[in-house]
Amino acid sequence: MLSFQIRPVDRSIEAALQQKIDTKTKPLGALGMLEDLALKIGLIQNSLNPVLNNPAILVFAADHGITDERVSAFPKVVTSQMVLNFLAGGAAINAFCKQNNILLRIIDAGVDADFNSTAIISRKIGRGTRNFMREPAMTQAQLDAAIEAGAILAKDESVRSNVIGFGEMGIGNTSAAAVLTHRYTGVPLDDLVGRGTGVSEEGLNHKRQVLNIAAKLHASAQEPMDVMRCLGGFEIAMMLGGMLQAAQQRMIILIDGFIATAAFLCAYRLNPNILDYAVFAHCSAEAGHLAALNFLNVKPLLQLGMRLGEGSGAAVAYPILVSAVAFLNEMASFTSASVSGKSS
Amino acid sequence: MLSFQIRPVDRSIEAALQQKIDTKTKPLGALGMLEDLALKIGLIQNSLNPVLNNPAILVFAADHGITDERVSAFPKVVTSQMVLNFLAGGAAINAFCKQNNILLRIIDAGVDADFNSTAIISRKIGRGTRNFMREPAMTQAQLDAAIEAGAILAKDESVRSNVIGFGEMGIGNTSAAAVLTHRYTGVPLDDLVGRGTGVSEEGLNHKRQVLNIAAKLHASAQEPMDVMRCLGGFEIAMMLGGMLQAAQQRMIILIDGFIATAAFLCAYRLNPNILDYAVFAHCSAEAGHLAALNFLNVKPLLQLGMRLGEGSGAAVAYPILVSAVAFLNEMASFTSASVSGKSS
Repeated sequence: MLSFQIRPVDRSIEAALQQKIDTKTKPLGALGMLEDLALKIGLIQNSLNPVLNNPAILVFAADHGITDERVSAFPKVVTSQMVLNFLAGGAAINAFCKQNNILLRIIDAGVDADFNSTAIISRKIGRGTRNFMREPAMTQAQLDAAIEAGAILAKDESVRSNVIGFGEMGIGNTSAAAVLTHRYTGVPLDDLVGRGTGVSEEGLNHKRQVLNIAAKLHASAQEPMDVMRCLGGFEIAMMLGGMLQAAQQRMIILIDGFIATAAFLCAYRLNPNILDYAVFAHCSAEAGHLAALNFLNVKPLLQLGMRLGEGSGAAVAYPILVSAVAFLNEMASFTSASVSGKSS
Repeated sequence: MLSFQIRPVDRSIEAALQQKIDTKTKPLGALGMLEDLALKIGLIQNSLNPVLNNPAILVFAADHGITDERVSAFPKVVTSQMVLNFLAGGAAINAFCKQNNILLRIIDAGVDADFNSTAIISRKIGRGTRNFMREPAMTQAQLDAAIEAGAILAKDESVRSNVIGFGEMGIGNTSAAAVLTHRYTGVPLDDLVGRGTGVSEEGLNHKRQVLNIAAKLHASAQEPMDVMRCLGGFEIAMMLGGMLQAAQQRMIILIDGFIATAAFLCAYRLNPNILDYAVFAHCSAEAGHLAALNFLNVKPLLQLGMRLGEGSGAAVAYPILVSAVAFLNEMASFTSASVSGKSS
């Protein structure tokens, strides 16, 4: 298995960064979370003048054996149909990436369909995971391959980019994310099971029953990677590999929603230092996301009630990162602008 | 006095707009507030394909007689110093407008200083208002002139732009905004008095005492415009005129923070139809803003803990409007993308 060297950010520059922020022509703290974000980005880049280079969002798609248990409101075929929609430029993530000059990469991590396109990055681990209500979702070899593929993609991206967003598409993957989040955080499973793409009240109860059975079946899996093998998805494992590598490369990691956060939770359990590199784009309306964010003790940038996946929250939030860097680099200081400070 | 014709939006297109939103390739409602925003913008423009043309943010600056009572942490001279900072491009609003291709206009509504610059739009009503703890902040003629100046500026802007943001700069204006908000909403004054640019606990108590005296002094002012005359500011009244005219022109009105919202509250009390045209950019960390937003029953786009003014929240939020219009215009429908709908 791959190993990753993720060091905490070097805080020797922190006081100077904070000083730079505090002497800008504004009351102390008046830019709120933009100030925290500027500090974070400066620390990641170990620079008083950080820059955002060629942001990219990687969207990993895969199918899930658990859909055999009818846990989703949409049929499984929608995974491959939406991949085609991404490739044709017709999805939400296409519009948002185009708006914000974000490079969008679509990766087939394990969709149950063949794509006849050069626009897709094929890293297919299999044609969907196995049904984790009955058996482990993947083999150790599949898990290792997914993590390695994600890591290589992130490393490739790091050549041109220092901001990498993670998104996904996979009918059934809120089921995987719910049970993974339960295992990584200890939050009761029922609190983490949501409507996904829109199951009914009856469907929600059924989804809870299925996931409780799955959680019991794999209760003996304890190590974070073993939990991922038993209950994860190919796209989730590939995001995990990508996140771990991105942190090793000291990139800014932009986490989208509930499923991307489930991948992040695994990375965090493996090495909490990764939190230094992560920016959480938004709080999804999907039931379990807020609990996951609270477990990590992080505040996301946006709270727009989005619950689409695809990296859409990451793409919509990206301009806020640009704002943070812009004020840090471009604003005058009290001294340079000859503006008076607070009265004594 | 000017009168404004503000009609509610024409809702005959609403069902078709909602249908367009609902047939995009995403689960129903999955883009959350972006969907509400797309609907709102479509209704304002009475179009299934709305566009955002040449956004502008108008920042109105003025001084306040109430600063004689030492209600602010910063000296009054900072108003003019910050105007010079805006003109030199060194303030937060400069960085954010540049980032998002927003035209920034700086208006001297009544600063107690002379500016030797062609870059400022001079609409000086006076060299600061009078001290409203002792007398009305302005005369009727001054109020009328401020409203008319704001209205003309908004009308001029409407020739090239259909999105107009309102921001302000004025040491002491959280005091005016607090007491105006109290009068327009009925929320207890003490709950609306905050630290502004950063007064101490002791300063906060003093600010509360001063504003309670002012509120009592002008208790006989009842009509919204009369309340503005007694307790407002030149920049607040000019924003009011701008907002009323912008709504008449059917522009999208982007409201920044606590002080801009105080101006909006007056407009709303004059004609609640204006709410159809207003988008609230963010919830300021300044104490009274959330109460004002709750009174209007509106949810702002951002909650980043900003409290700077200058239109900074409006500028940072603007890309979210772009996202709303982008998904509405660019996303494929289930039919056009051949994506399956929900299982029965």
